[in-house]
Amino acid sequence: MENRRVLIDALPQGKLAADHYKLVHEPVPEAGDGEVLCRTLALTIGAGTRAGLQGSASYAGAPRTGVVMNGTTVARVVASRADGVAEGDLVVCPGGWQDYSVHAASEVSVVADGVDPAHYLGVLGTNGLTAYFGLLAVGEPQPGQTVLVSAAAGSVGHLVGQIARIKGCHVVGVAGGEAKCARLVDELGFDAAVSYKDDGFRAAVKGACADGVDIYFDNTGGDILGTALRLMNVHGRIVCCGVVSQYDTSDPAPGPRGVPGLLVNKRVRMEGFLVFDYRDRYAEARQALSGWMDDGSLTVWVDEVQGLENAPAAFVDLLAGGNVGTRIVRVADA
Amino acid sequence: MENRRVLIDALPQGKLAADHYKLVHEPVPEAGDGEVLCRTLALTIGAGTRAGLQGSASYAGAPRTGVVMNGTTVARVVASRADGVAEGDLVVCPGGWQDYSVHAASEVSVVADGVDPAHYLGVLGTNGLTAYFGLLAVGEPQPGQTVLVSAAAGSVGHLVGQIARIKGCHVVGVAGGEAKCARLVDELGFDAAVSYKDDGFRAAVKGACADGVDIYFDNTGGDILGTALRLMNVHGRIVCCGVVSQYDTSDPAPGPRGVPGLLVNKRVRMEGFLVFDYRDRYAEARQALSGWMDDGSLTVWVDEVQGLENAPAAFVDLLAGGNVGTRIVRVADA
Repeated sequence: MENRRVLIDALPQGKLAADHYKLVHEPVPEAGDGEVLCRTLALTIGAGTRAGLQGSASYAGAPRTGVVMNGTTVARVVASRADGVAEGDLVVCPGGWQDYSVHAASEVSVVADGVDPAHYLGVLGTNGLTAYFGLLAVGEPQPGQTVLVSAAAGSVGHLVGQIARIKGCHVVGVAGGEAKCARLVDELGFDAAVSYKDDGFRAAVKGACADGVDIYFDNTGGDILGTALRLMNVHGRIVCCGVVSQYDTSDPAPGPRGVPGLLVNKRVRMEGFLVFDYRDRYAEARQALSGWMDDGSLTVWVDEVQGLENAPAAFVDLLAGGNVGTRIVRVADA
Repeated sequence: MENRRVLIDALPQGKLAADHYKLVHEPVPEAGDGEVLCRTLALTIGAGTRAGLQGSASYAGAPRTGVVMNGTTVARVVASRADGVAEGDLVVCPGGWQDYSVHAASEVSVVADGVDPAHYLGVLGTNGLTAYFGLLAVGEPQPGQTVLVSAAAGSVGHLVGQIARIKGCHVVGVAGGEAKCARLVDELGFDAAVSYKDDGFRAAVKGACADGVDIYFDNTGGDILGTALRLMNVHGRIVCCGVVSQYDTSDPAPGPRGVPGLLVNKRVRMEGFLVFDYRDRYAEARQALSGWMDDGSLTVWVDEVQGLENAPAAFVDLLAGGNVGTRIVRVADA
């Protein structure tokens, strides 16, 4: 029995490529006292982890090579030497891109069997919680307000738009390409969706947000943020969730014109957040998200890739906009 | 009897100059039914009005030539045909740069005689109220936190720093030149002050904010904002009050690098505000500010220029950083 591990082999200068990673085969580690050994079932790949590979330290700390690539996993406990976690438990843990990982009991969260484990990496995991708290706690939507969301077909964005719809808002998505945009409207009930690749992008967003923008949920930064800033209504909120336009580079662009001038004129609040600050309210959010799934008002898009060895290519493809919904890599059967 | 009026003669392309204005002599207007005729005693010049002369519409609307330059004034009512305002009353009104102005009664606020009328344009006027609500309502300072303020020797900034000191914060100011910085520390009790003109500016700010920055009160935008962004603590607040670095130009610079990326990593809230949104709480603020003046904890800097005809030059000088505290132009004796 061996442990396949995907290590960071080199830090990208410019765009990320699959060969910045290497796959190694090592012995399966053992759980020490108070620890558990976990078998990875699936891992999620999010654009935000690209920021962790940039030279400057992100909230995740400075990047290093020779270590396993980080990522949240859903896993089966195959050996436990810790109280409160038993062999056979399904857990969510920071397992990274490998078959097996060892964790202190405090690092793993036991979750219920009975739903697709991948949901714990998507709608019931960080992505869903991020959509929920970012929109509701930071954005504070009111019925009838206009919510604009970028990377709207992405893991967080496709949930943000639907939660906004559920809350009675006029919802406009920005995504890459006509196909994604059509699916946002037809399958998820967005009021409109605009491709940022279109020449008439700015005018189209303005047309779709005829009453201005009350909440812009920003997953991208860059030009889309610049466009949104000019459409913000007085006392609007910009929820700064991610900066995917700036992740896959070593040379982030300047901030948008209009910051801070337009913020003053329109009394706009622009607020960065991380979901971990809402830890105490996760149960409330998961209950709400599950309820919306159960009653059919929330559709969850999962974008699956098979096999640990394909994780690097799946990440590169994700950064190029290849995914729809939460990208999951299946590593082993449940 | 004539009415001297300073008109906007040309909109600046690039830097503002005194000859963008012209002084004209016209007859004194008459108050109509429900109106009052006011004799200007003093007017205030703030950097923010420069934004109103830029091509794009600010919150004040699009700029026009051939009209009297706008500005808040303190004035004596010399004729009244309105209920509730009597001849002889002291009022604050949007009189602009002229000897006489006519207003609907709803446009003027009657204020008490007994203090220097200029205070109604400074500490008890828009500047003081802006400092009060921007710091306390938007910034939400807690004792022991570090407050960094730019344009710290300016009309708003010198009050912000002192209110922060009164609230028990560690206060660091940024101003132009050693002389202003020394006065902030020696006369107003700032813990430190740094000149943005110094080569070692960034390192000096970092040194003065050894525990990071919890609140950055931004009057300038530009490089100082960029420096502050990198020093923000987790859950810090950036109070966007003004953008003086970008007013005296027709070509505002891009926003700072790090927006929105650093906002996410540090969960920073960046919020624009205008004091008018706090109208309902002006009385509370004026009472607090008066109390601090009376007990000696708040020192008010007034920077006086004599004569309406000198207003244009005083404005140009202000934009070049020539003032300390609130710049007032005395137009007539009380």
